[in-house]
Amino acid sequence: MERLDARGQVAMPGLVNCHTHAPMVALRGLAEDLPTEEWFNDVVWPVESNLTEKDVELGARLACAEMIRGGVTCFADHYFAMDAVAAVVAECGIRAHLGQAYFSSQGEQGRQQSLEFALHHRGGAHGRITTALAPHAPYTVTDADLAATADLARAHGLPVHLHASENRDQADTSLARHGVTPIEVLERTGVLDADVLIAHGTGILERDLSVLARARGRTAVASAPRGYLKFAWPTTTPIRALREIGVPVGLATDGAASNNSLDVWESMALTSLIQKSTEGDPRWLTSRQALHHATLQSARAVGLGDRIGSIAPGRRADIVLVDLTGPHTQPVHDLAATLVHSARSSDVRTTIVDGRILMRDRELLTLDVPAVVRELGERMPALLDRSHGRRIQEYDT
Amino acid sequence: MERLDARGQVAMPGLVNCHTHAPMVALRGLAEDLPTEEWFNDVVWPVESNLTEKDVELGARLACAEMIRGGVTCFADHYFAMDAVAAVVAECGIRAHLGQAYFSSQGEQGRQQSLEFALHHRGGAHGRITTALAPHAPYTVTDADLAATADLARAHGLPVHLHASENRDQADTSLARHGVTPIEVLERTGVLDADVLIAHGTGILERDLSVLARARGRTAVASAPRGYLKFAWPTTTPIRALREIGVPVGLATDGAASNNSLDVWESMALTSLIQKSTEGDPRWLTSRQALHHATLQSARAVGLGDRIGSIAPGRRADIVLVDLTGPHTQPVHDLAATLVHSARSSDVRTTIVDGRILMRDRELLTLDVPAVVRELGERMPALLDRSHGRRIQEYDT
Repeated sequence: MERLDARGQVAMPGLVNCHTHAPMVALRGLAEDLPTEEWFNDVVWPVESNLTEKDVELGARLACAEMIRGGVTCFADHYFAMDAVAAVVAECGIRAHLGQAYFSSQGEQGRQQSLEFALHHRGGAHGRITTALAPHAPYTVTDADLAATADLARAHGLPVHLHASENRDQADTSLARHGVTPIEVLERTGVLDADVLIAHGTGILERDLSVLARARGRTAVASAPRGYLKFAWPTTTPIRALREIGVPVGLATDGAASNNSLDVWESMALTSLIQKSTEGDPRWLTSRQALHHATLQSARAVGLGDRIGSIAPGRRADIVLVDLTGPHTQPVHDLAATLVHSARSSDVRTTIVDGRILMRDRELLTLDVPAVVRELGERMPALLDRSHGRRIQEYDT
Repeated sequence: MERLDARGQVAMPGLVNCHTHAPMVALRGLAEDLPTEEWFNDVVWPVESNLTEKDVELGARLACAEMIRGGVTCFADHYFAMDAVAAVVAECGIRAHLGQAYFSSQGEQGRQQSLEFALHHRGGAHGRITTALAPHAPYTVTDADLAATADLARAHGLPVHLHASENRDQADTSLARHGVTPIEVLERTGVLDADVLIAHGTGILERDLSVLARARGRTAVASAPRGYLKFAWPTTTPIRALREIGVPVGLATDGAASNNSLDVWESMALTSLIQKSTEGDPRWLTSRQALHHATLQSARAVGLGDRIGSIAPGRRADIVLVDLTGPHTQPVHDLAATLVHSARSSDVRTTIVDGRILMRDRELLTLDVPAVVRELGERMPALLDRSHGRRIQEYDT
């Protein structure tokens, strides 16, 4: 047993990043100041058609380094070549909830690979890896494929992690084309009968609330507010309405290609600020609530509500030590407010996952950032080449 | 001459905090999740009735430490007992634009003290201190006092720094009570004939734009978006409209009692995000523009547009070195985006003001934070006592 000197520091549960595409850190800052459609069609999806397993591996290493330094002890990832991500998770010691993404445009193979990934890696890395089926979204996966996914989820006891009603446009287009919202699509295809993690949900409409209420206990939503502002989406995740129907909302960063960082600490502060502003109520979403979303509600959202998200006997030791001695965090009149509104991810001194120290006094113990950055830099010209005119998918909600 | 090893770092102009109440760091986190009126009347103004010069001195030291660590090389302060702030500025080496605040409830004495402060300290600290007359706001200072202030500004060649149209409520109340907006009050009392720095301006209305356009070249606005979200104000500073009429908008944090930090880096990122969201336009307020607001436009806002705000021959050496080697700032595809959306204030390694190094490799060279925190802590019970039932002013827009 090792003793850590943590004078002037606070121990708190590690933050959980409920929805990201970790390897996309390779594209950080590549597609700036663009509407969603151009971001996907002109930059991200063309570039992703070049993606190799090695790119994913290096991106995942860089992402894990960033998250461990930012006090994130668990992340839910939804991406491609996820075997490489699982290997990085095993190697660096972080906890993760992983799903191999697929589109219907890949044919049955995509869904099959997602299932194989989920079954193969479930319980991996000494139990630190949990898995999900990961259809991309109702606008890129057909109803038939969603229904088949729901069947697989039931048959194998797997959760589903997908994007749905990401923004109001998607909800409106779904209504216009199919007469149902994306959330209603999830219900009628049986997806909501599984444990489901819905990313974003800023397009969740009033009529969706009763649907989600019926799936209470199985459904959660991940909110990554920074990207919604950056894309100028007209709404944010309706956290207050979801709370009223008992649906947990975890916090997230989405990928760094849109969010520019994997900083859940910032998501926590932004969630409080944007919720106050959106609801027109300064008393709503206090710092205490923001901490609850970033820890225990996030843990529930990734199906780990009984294992992580709080510091208590019987829970896994996913703990971060936060330095409060800096001038920007003094004096401390209200600890929750200090943590959410004054502290920054860079105030995390030490990060512990499953009892193992992954960062001590800001020093990463399991990852070599300069080596990753160098190797990633060498691969960049091939990764960024868009002269081929291909893209992995078309954004057309 | 000293050489600094800054490999992996970017040199950029120091950020300018265009509007704060630096000593209010002592109240950081004391009045959380409250509407503006309760924040003022129930907590801040009662506590401020206990304020001593020593509290202000300690608060200013803590604030300067935080700002220097966050890459802020100049701040505009609007507070009480400003002699103490001026002394701290002289001692710690930062640059500042200082004004002694006053309400009409103080009688003529308040205005007189504001003038004496401005004349006495103008050009102080080897030219690092500039000064302003600092009436509090049109809702706490009468038209007659504003007119007298305008006369003093003209007679002594001093600028004016005040709050005006902070929020929509103030504008609406002014219209209902007096038939004019707060901005129109500034015009008719002659304040807009002086060089004026207007804090916040989230209540600036369409009809105010022609008024401000007539004051172009003399007027600037300071925007501190975090507090507007936290108070759930319905609008933010109309930066796009102000840009169209040629009024510079500097970035700010306001005091830490509302903003919870003096982190202009965060104001820069939030300004970009909130402007995109508010205008419904992801192409607006790019990272390059955000940097321009935080540096050169902020410098202009505090009357120092020809001395600081850019790195160029003839400018004062107010420079910060920003480390971009962290995993959260790699790779760099777009330097401006990396600085605004991925880097954090904690990535500032070295802060230089007027050619003097105030922080080197994160070590503060002119301030002793633990000593300040200790001494401030001892004074806290007396400072926070609200049993007397007094307050320095009433919030009633």
